[in-house]
Amino acid sequence: MLRVGYPAQLSAEFLNVFPDGIELIPLADSLDHDVELDVWIPDPYQGRALRIWPRLQGIRLVLSLMAGTEWIPGTVGPHVTICSGRGAHNVSTAEWTLSAILAMQKYFPLYFGIQQSGQWKRRSEATTHYETISGDKRPLYPPVLLEELTGKTVLMVGHGAIGQEIERMLTPFNVDLLRVARSARTEPLVHSVSELDSLLPKADIVVLILPLTPESRGLIGSKQFGLMRQGTLFVNAARGPIVQTNALVEALNAGKIRAALDVTDPEPLPDGHPLWSCPNLLLTPHIAGSTPQFAPRALKTAADELRRFIAGEPLHNAVQLAV
Amino acid sequence: MLRVGYPAQLSAEFLNVFPDGIELIPLADSLDHDVELDVWIPDPYQGRALRIWPRLQGIRLVLSLMAGTEWIPGTVGPHVTICSGRGAHNVSTAEWTLSAILAMQKYFPLYFGIQQSGQWKRRSEATTHYETISGDKRPLYPPVLLEELTGKTVLMVGHGAIGQEIERMLTPFNVDLLRVARSARTEPLVHSVSELDSLLPKADIVVLILPLTPESRGLIGSKQFGLMRQGTLFVNAARGPIVQTNALVEALNAGKIRAALDVTDPEPLPDGHPLWSCPNLLLTPHIAGSTPQFAPRALKTAADELRRFIAGEPLHNAVQLAV
Repeated sequence: MLRVGYPAQLSAEFLNVFPDGIELIPLADSLDHDVELDVWIPDPYQGRALRIWPRLQGIRLVLSLMAGTEWIPGTVGPHVTICSGRGAHNVSTAEWTLSAILAMQKYFPLYFGIQQSGQWKRRSEATTHYETISGDKRPLYPPVLLEELTGKTVLMVGHGAIGQEIERMLTPFNVDLLRVARSARTEPLVHSVSELDSLLPKADIVVLILPLTPESRGLIGSKQFGLMRQGTLFVNAARGPIVQTNALVEALNAGKIRAALDVTDPEPLPDGHPLWSCPNLLLTPHIAGSTPQFAPRALKTAADELRRFIAGEPLHNAVQLAV
Repeated sequence: MLRVGYPAQLSAEFLNVFPDGIELIPLADSLDHDVELDVWIPDPYQGRALRIWPRLQGIRLVLSLMAGTEWIPGTVGPHVTICSGRGAHNVSTAEWTLSAILAMQKYFPLYFGIQQSGQWKRRSEATTHYETISGDKRPLYPPVLLEELTGKTVLMVGHGAIGQEIERMLTPFNVDLLRVARSARTEPLVHSVSELDSLLPKADIVVLILPLTPESRGLIGSKQFGLMRQGTLFVNAARGPIVQTNALVEALNAGKIRAALDVTDPEPLPDGHPLWSCPNLLLTPHIAGSTPQFAPRALKTAADELRRFIAGEPLHNAVQLAV
């Protein structure tokens, strides 16, 4: 009987999607003895997963609940098959991205401050904000108090499952979409990442939604922020280290760009880090995927993959096949 | 030659959409002499428009730039045709509504406070927030840190042009949509407002986007908030007086509902009004329509209507025909 280890804290009600004929073994946060497993579902929090890893024996298959699996191959080695939780985060991460873009176009960080002060008349600060960040100094009337998403040019860096979901949610806003990914392709037109620098000056909004790889680490630095238009909205829904944090802080403090970030480098972002207090920024602490729907969706994805593994069928989400 | 008076502050660049053969007369904020006009484009700010109204003579047609024209008939009387700026606010107001719904589902007011404090670990407050507001006390793992819009039940109260635009923007989120308007209709199914109370308990999100009329004034009070589910998100993108403010403050302070409001009663909301400091609230100071695209769009709408008026064709946006 296949022994499948899972984080003990997962609600039992979500485990009934697993196939019959396996033994489900709850794994505590820390282990004082070795545990024999065939299949490991690591805790979604990497630190907790790594803490018990040395006690796990016999693993042939890792079923990650997460889309980002960059830490797993180096940990478990090449003789283990690894499947990602691809798909389980699509909706939640794409929704966060749309929410963050819209919140920034509507100047919600500014309006939260006004709400906290309880002074209606302070809304005139939004007009100054618009003039400063957009560089549009025409005396517009009525005064501009927020912006639109409709019709803007959005550059999407990364075009995997979550990127395509973001694109679907952008549909009603009739944006001009530019796409960049590791390799160029057509239908839809996706440019190679080598064209990134030439596309950056065309965008009103730049969205990062690509995996962290040796190639993507540090992809966005001073040069890239310099190539962006005045007031560009820069959104990172991918991984913190794809961006050079010093360059990001500099571009924000210079008033060159606006940003919405769910991920940072380092992470957790330490108390007092200069990024926290940058202007024109919405920063959430890596929460985009953590909705009530995540666990049931991710366990369903894992259960389907396990069924294929048992049946010897091709796996859908393998990121490493055991050698 | 038809004399068309318009607010002098409007940028001249947006006026070139008007037909030839008319005299465009800029109107200052205050007038010390009478002005003869055939057509009046009132200042978008009602107070400014009312200030110069007593000096305007001969008006046959009012071309409002705004969707809400409730103050105009009582001011100009029955012998004047009034056209609304219907359409010019559709995109911007619908975008604000989507932005506000998503910002509240993502707990952005909470996360904005955490960002200001610069303490990553405070994100655990989001889990407590979820448990309290949703009433879902199951020990979910990973902890819930925000919610989704996808799959929720949205009750839209009002189904005019802006309501239909909101519906279009909701499409990617696969919501269950319930619609209420003054009169019931089919394709799509719209319920009569008499069914409102029976529909309120079914909704996760209630959106007001109906005109202020004698019938809609005070439509939402203690009884309606009482009928809503625990944690319902209540969104007012319409007019403040459709809601009984005391009942709204009470429902928020009791933790029964969450709210996003662009309009209030009274308006402007006075400094120190209890609504400012209610919990689970996003309050913006009536800004939803004021984007850079508003003026050109509204003047295009007004110019098209004026062309029809001159040609004797049926008007598209008449809210009152001169008797």
